[in-house]
Amino acid sequence: MKNSYFLNRKSIRKFKDAPVDDTLLNDIITGAAKAPTTGNMQLYSVIITRGKKERDELAKFHFSQPASTGAPVLLTVCADLYRFTRWCELRNANVGFDNFLSFLSAFSDAVIFAQQMATIAEINGLGTCYLGTVIYNAPEIAKLLELPPLVIPVASIALGWPDEEGVPTERLESSVIIHEETYRKSSDKEILSFYKIKEDFEPNKKFVIENGKENLAQVFAEVRYPKEMNENISEKLKKYLSDIGILNIK
Amino acid sequence: MKNSYFLNRKSIRKFKDAPVDDTLLNDIITGAAKAPTTGNMQLYSVIITRGKKERDELAKFHFSQPASTGAPVLLTVCADLYRFTRWCELRNANVGFDNFLSFLSAFSDAVIFAQQMATIAEINGLGTCYLGTVIYNAPEIAKLLELPPLVIPVASIALGWPDEEGVPTERLESSVIIHEETYRKSSDKEILSFYKIKEDFEPNKKFVIENGKENLAQVFAEVRYPKEMNENISEKLKKYLSDIGILNIK
Repeated sequence: MKNSYFLNRKSIRKFKDAPVDDTLLNDIITGAAKAPTTGNMQLYSVIITRGKKERDELAKFHFSQPASTGAPVLLTVCADLYRFTRWCELRNANVGFDNFLSFLSAFSDAVIFAQQMATIAEINGLGTCYLGTVIYNAPEIAKLLELPPLVIPVASIALGWPDEEGVPTERLESSVIIHEETYRKSSDKEILSFYKIKEDFEPNKKFVIENGKENLAQVFAEVRYPKEMNENISEKLKKYLSDIGILNIK
Repeated sequence: MKNSYFLNRKSIRKFKDAPVDDTLLNDIITGAAKAPTTGNMQLYSVIITRGKKERDELAKFHFSQPASTGAPVLLTVCADLYRFTRWCELRNANVGFDNFLSFLSAFSDAVIFAQQMATIAEINGLGTCYLGTVIYNAPEIAKLLELPPLVIPVASIALGWPDEEGVPTERLESSVIIHEETYRKSSDKEILSFYKIKEDFEPNKKFVIENGKENLAQVFAEVRYPKEMNENISEKLKKYLSDIGILNIK
């Protein structure tokens, strides 16, 4: 089983003050663009942010988390329905990709492409860290990067040469995420047992104390990803996608 | 540059009539579960469909495309907000993941995990093919696989031992998908030049003739992904996500 790189994979949040060579970055992207894509349409683009000023501005929308402020390269991967649509229009085709299904297909394409970039980069010694915040501030990032309508930022990767080992993270047992033939409805007792590995992980125990909560679930649900924040951002995103024609919410 | 596997990567749609070993499949999933995930929440599950009857039923929702009917294993990767939510409830946390932002985060998690499964499987000699149709028929597939609300099928992979070489696919030049600092607005002439590589690809030329269209763009926009179909499926998906509490469209 050729699995060792994948089993030991770690995110890197601290980078050396050294540039990522242009040719290397180009090779990574060329390799990643061979990843699967819906109907071979390649409904994605990547914005490379390398300028110091530009990185600082972009990092603000990632809440200035260390990986975003310290990386020499920020990659913003976008679901891109614009380029393909424009080609179709120019070829006199009756195209309709300004809708929710096409957005989800392009979202998939973009994330597959992003993950392939991360994998190729890491196999070549680079470090990466996803910035999930890209979705939180998608409309603001779209404006900053001058994206046309139908180009939506969906994945963001901080990239650079590692200046740390990275911390191994605990994961659920694979039996927890695997379901045979149909979804296995677990009992409450089973569900609690699944997350024991996370609750018992020392850094998580510290987290609970630092945040003044009773348990890890409360840290996730009430501090890191609170309901009200999730709902407010959801409304912002729905309005954004509606404004650019994807959702058509009345 | 360690890139050769990635540069030569091909989808496989024809599989040997040979099972995929349980241990191997488990190792693939264990490795893939080390892939990046939003806040280490692992908001995904995978349903493994191996029974003949079960595969046949599932393949119908993939429009019985050859990869879906001929593969010994079908993997349906789901955005899973149910398991984590239930854990939080059991730990007396005020959880709110039944919203659009959480869905998009889980969608990302699921696709990253799916792509890592595909990569590990392929590096170990297996063949894979994504079935993009999973999104088209997400509500029907959710019912068939007995998914609880908040578990949404978002990526599907046909898996097995290859019984063909696979066909290399033409891709856009990487310069087309790369944008430096801000999105480069291409001229119409440039956009047409980007897609020349696809228009000149021999199998695509045949496609155009077989479908009685003037050009490749019309095949994509009017035959394979027609506007009316996209819009009808979009409405179905919006209703589905609204019914399970993700979109709350009035």
